[in-house]
Amino acid sequence: MRITVLGLGHMGAAMAGRLLAQGHTLVVYNRTPERAEPFRARGATVAASPGDAVAKAEVAVSMLADDAAVERVTFGPDGILAHLPKGAIHVSMSTISVPLATRLATEHARAGQRYASAPVFGRPEAAAEGKLFVIASGQADAVHDAQPVFDAIGQRTVVLGTDPAAAALIKLTGNFLLQTVVEGLAEAFAVVRKAGIDPQMFHDVLTSTLFNAPVYRTYGGLMVKGNDDVAGFTAPLALKDTRLMLAAADTLRVPMPFASVVRDAFVSALARGYERKDMSVLARVAAENAGLAPIVAAPADDTRRASAARSEMRM
Amino acid sequence: MRITVLGLGHMGAAMAGRLLAQGHTLVVYNRTPERAEPFRARGATVAASPGDAVAKAEVAVSMLADDAAVERVTFGPDGILAHLPKGAIHVSMSTISVPLATRLATEHARAGQRYASAPVFGRPEAAAEGKLFVIASGQADAVHDAQPVFDAIGQRTVVLGTDPAAAALIKLTGNFLLQTVVEGLAEAFAVVRKAGIDPQMFHDVLTSTLFNAPVYRTYGGLMVKGNDDVAGFTAPLALKDTRLMLAAADTLRVPMPFASVVRDAFVSALARGYERKDMSVLARVAAENAGLAPIVAAPADDTRRASAARSEMRM
Amino acid sequence: MRITVLGLGHMGAAMAGRLLAQGHTLVVYNRTPERAEPFRARGATVAASPGDAVAKAEVAVSMLADDAAVERVTFGPDGILAHLPKGAIHVSMSTISVPLATRLATEHARAGQRYASAPVFGRPEAAAEGKLFVIASGQADAVHDAQPVFDAIGQRTVVLGTDPAAAALIKLTGNFLLQTVVEGLAEAFAVVRKAGIDPQMFHDVLTSTLFNAPVYRTYGGLMVKGNDDVAGFTAPLALKDTRLMLAAADTLRVPMPFASVVRDAFVSALARGYERKDMSVLARVAAENAGLAPIVAAPADDTRRASAARSEMRM
Amino acid sequence: MRITVLGLGHMGAAMAGRLLAQGHTLVVYNRTPERAEPFRARGATVAASPGDAVAKAEVAVSMLADDAAVERVTFGPDGILAHLPKGAIHVSMSTISVPLATRLATEHARAGQRYASAPVFGRPEAAAEGKLFVIASGQADAVHDAQPVFDAIGQRTVVLGTDPAAAALIKLTGNFLLQTVVEGLAEAFAVVRKAGIDPQMFHDVLTSTLFNAPVYRTYGGLMVKGNDDVAGFTAPLALKDTRLMLAAADTLRVPMPFASVVRDAFVSALARGYERKDMSVLARVAAENAGLAPIVAAPADDTRRASAARSEMRM
Repeated sequence: MRITVLGLGHMGAAMAGRLLAQGHTLVVYNRTPERAEPFRARGATVAASPGDAVAKAEVAVSMLADDAAVERVTFGPDGILAHLPKGAIHVSMSTISVPLATRLATEHARAGQRYASAPVFGRPEAAAEGKLFVIASGQADAVHDAQPVFDAIGQRTVVLGTDPAAAALIKLTGNFLLQTVVEGLAEAFAVVRKAGIDPQMFHDVLTSTLFNAPVYRTYGGLMVKGNDDVAGFTAPLALKDTRLMLAAADTLRVPMPFASVVRDAFVSALARGYERKDMSVLARVAAENAGLAPIVAAPADDTRRASAARSEMRM
Repeated sequence: MRITVLGLGHMGAAMAGRLLAQGHTLVVYNRTPERAEPFRARGATVAASPGDAVAKAEVAVSMLADDAAVERVTFGPDGILAHLPKGAIHVSMSTISVPLATRLATEHARAGQRYASAPVFGRPEAAAEGKLFVIASGQADAVHDAQPVFDAIGQRTVVLGTDPAAAALIKLTGNFLLQTVVEGLAEAFAVVRKAGIDPQMFHDVLTSTLFNAPVYRTYGGLMVKGNDDVAGFTAPLALKDTRLMLAAADTLRVPMPFASVVRDAFVSALARGYERKDMSVLARVAAENAGLAPIVAAPADDTRRASAARSEMRM
Repeated sequence: MRITVLGLGHMGAAMAGRLLAQGHTLVVYNRTPERAEPFRARGATVAASPGDAVAKAEVAVSMLADDAAVERVTFGPDGILAHLPKGAIHVSMSTISVPLATRLATEHARAGQRYASAPVFGRPEAAAEGKLFVIASGQADAVHDAQPVFDAIGQRTVVLGTDPAAAALIKLTGNFLLQTVVEGLAEAFAVVRKAGIDPQMFHDVLTSTLFNAPVYRTYGGLMVKGNDDVAGFTAPLALKDTRLMLAAADTLRVPMPFASVVRDAFVSALARGYERKDMSVLARVAAENAGLAPIVAAPADDTRRASAARSEMRM
Repeated sequence: MRITVLGLGHMGAAMAGRLLAQGHTLVVYNRTPERAEPFRARGATVAASPGDAVAKAEVAVSMLADDAAVERVTFGPDGILAHLPKGAIHVSMSTISVPLATRLATEHARAGQRYASAPVFGRPEAAAEGKLFVIASGQADAVHDAQPVFDAIGQRTVVLGTDPAAAALIKLTGNFLLQTVVEGLAEAFAVVRKAGIDPQMFHDVLTSTLFNAPVYRTYGGLMVKGNDDVAGFTAPLALKDTRLMLAAADTLRVPMPFASVVRDAFVSALARGYERKDMSVLARVAAENAGLAPIVAAPADDTRRASAARSEMRM
């Protein structure tokens, strides 16, 4: 299939790599052209503008940081809308606002093109291995015809119906739930640490009992190690998602007190200068609010402690 | 082993049944004696008072609703403290406050008896099958010697060290995290329902992607069905736990904004008359706050919808 | 002075009336022209478009519902920007977002016109009597030259300096503080009522002791009477302000947990169908969340109760 | 009248001084006896125990820090209950929990003594000048007969009826409202300071417009000066009151999200080591959460700035 990927951040690059590996004909575009070069070597065509990139595409996949980036790439004079062939499909996989999803569907339809919302759950490594979860909604035939893209990068596609806004909202809601896990753990670690309990041991208890799920293992693990510099998902991006969730909830008239707490925690993280940190930085904010120093892992120590904890575990 | 179980609520009864099935010599006590009768038929001795119940015990297990019940059974003139043999062990498996755990350890030590904190994670059905998770802390030999009890009812025991307060705090913190899952889902369902998305489909998306963990499946499942009358864990008991968590956090000086939100939601649930409902009633509260009617499941309908949702799922 | 008033809602109409009474030469414009007619009879000129309205103005005052309305009246082809004489002043007295205040200043400067932010505190009745408080910021000579307008409608003008954003932010912050008074009272009334204490008596205690300020008397008084239909300041308008406050705080990176609570309370008010009610509707929301019926005043009864309360008061 | 004052902290001492000055026959008791000595010189009798202190009293006034102190002084073997003459009145003016107010009334009635709840609003300086507000409830004749005490220290007494719990609850609710003023101002100052607006100017705007009330002037004034060491009302005492308010609300089943926010803010203040600070320390907490340094006033500077602000004010 002739596929274009617009946006080669961590996730877009992993998806582009996977699509190439699966034998698709790929065109790539990125605002900063250096990030596109490695793909040229692997057989992709590198385009100089969004319009050029999609001029012959069957499916144009956008994977960008926020609404503004998607709008720039789509609606600009040299954008997707002006250059995508009639009948071809724009698949938006970015996390975007609900109104933008609706607008994209409307404008592409008016231009004789097709549109599908298809945000994903999972981290870039999952994309590289074809293990993402794809949440799709929109015009039924567009979703259907884009399936080869979803199959390449995802382990499963859930189709939510024909409203393009549905997938966008579900993605925001899923991210919100992820953030509640992070804030919940952040408060839990603060209370446990302040009581003098080893956080590694607490983490082992949680993840070996009721909270034996990847999200708890991943974020609890980062917190135990004080490792919030990994930046899989930075605090400003997380705050952007919380804002979009709250805006959608406001429009729908749903109070979301947990989302408000999370919002304030991210705002405070940025106020404290933690712009480059992963969203697990909420543990640092909760620790500081409790008068604790952040955890700084001494690797050797940490290993010893972890293994001590494990040896106390009786099956 | 000669074991006494004090408290035959859902959890205590399941534990007593399991201990009998595993061949232990059992004495049971319950304030309302009718709940003890079925155990007599199965070979247990039914005692008329806590003191009588523990007079010959090697291990006395208390599994009661709250601090007040544990204090009544332990410190009364006819209580455990006055009658447990020297060297025997009181194992408190109830969810109790941190100060009470410390006080129990101190007073039993003064009386020449031993004490271990050993709260559990899991529902009564897990107890009946020996599948609980046991979190133990306290005097090392006491925890060690009570191990046959833990082995009978649990699939795993995590030993947290010698401070009896540690296990009590971890149990409260685990329950807090469980409640954050429930409140998070409650808000998520409200926003999704208000957008006109089928909650069953949303639940399927969540639990087949990042939130593929029993806690999400259990509580999401109850919410999808509007089934908050199951009362595995009633709202008043959940609120009691939140109160104990906040009291512990207050003493340790840790702000817990999520715990405060959960507390208010449970208080509002009780104010609305939902005293007998399961803690998944938070979904009903969130729905009402969003101007939605609660979900009332039409079973047939529900099955059809679920299967329709499944058929849209492409692997 | 030749003054134009754009927007004849409650506040704009009161201001226009006052300006006429003070002898200024007035042109008025309102999107729905009927609201302008009464002013024609009193000597004002009624304009058919914003552009016509300001074509000969020395000062053009806009007093509109929200950002969208101000943008429409200002930036449209027939708007203020295109028609206000060079050197004349656009005084924005509406409650608007911080970025819009900055944008207005920039664009008017570019067009050779002048701009001042001058939002007001007070209700329409205060405007009609020249008793508003005016908070002004912007280009110093613009603020100075618009002083005759401020003198006509206000009892006092506070000049905050030359940044047009400052007055906009102070206005939002003042409205936020007003909302915290309303939510604080709402929770207080719920707890007092549920304890069986007469809300009128509670109100008398408050306002005769530490809370002897007009805001407490006004909003407490509305709550005691259950009188949230007065719509001096409707819930949707209040929510709009909270949104702007939170957006400004987000940009400045300031967590505002009280603003988040207020936001959720207003969202819930709208979700429950209370769109037409005054912002004191928060008392109704808090009462419902506490399982109470809203207060419905029986006027006679109320008078009797109030006088009974007064008679218990000993000086 | 023969009056005993138990508890000579800031408020108790001010009340005792005022009662002496008004010509009453005074006995005083304080746990640390040195605080009582100055009153001996002024003609009071200094008692060595609560029992001795009240043995001949017509009215025994307790003004103590918390429930524990009131219980110690009242129920101990050498306490008020055991020694107050039959028919004499115990007037509790401390801020205490609702259940303790009820218990005091019950136990004194059982002992043939009388009881009135009479907490006060106002600071110690107001007590010294007879300017407090007294909120009284309880047995009608007890409240009536204690009136000379109220007249000496207060400018006004509000009688709430015969339920001794009512005055205790109203006092907690009033303190809650005071704390909402402090937290609201704390957030407002953070946002205004971060926007580069002079906090003194903001304070002047507020208190010269809608928020022209002593509570705003007092707490805003402390915040502008960064003066949270005055300790008129320390953070730990304020947190104690919030706890009692939330406990009362929990019992009554009233969610109080504002009280929860305030509670977390005070907990965080104590976690940061601000135990000795006034409750206006919430401004410091809010500032730190926004990444701001706390205000540190340079007195001279401050005066200059304030006068500059005033000069911009046009009447």
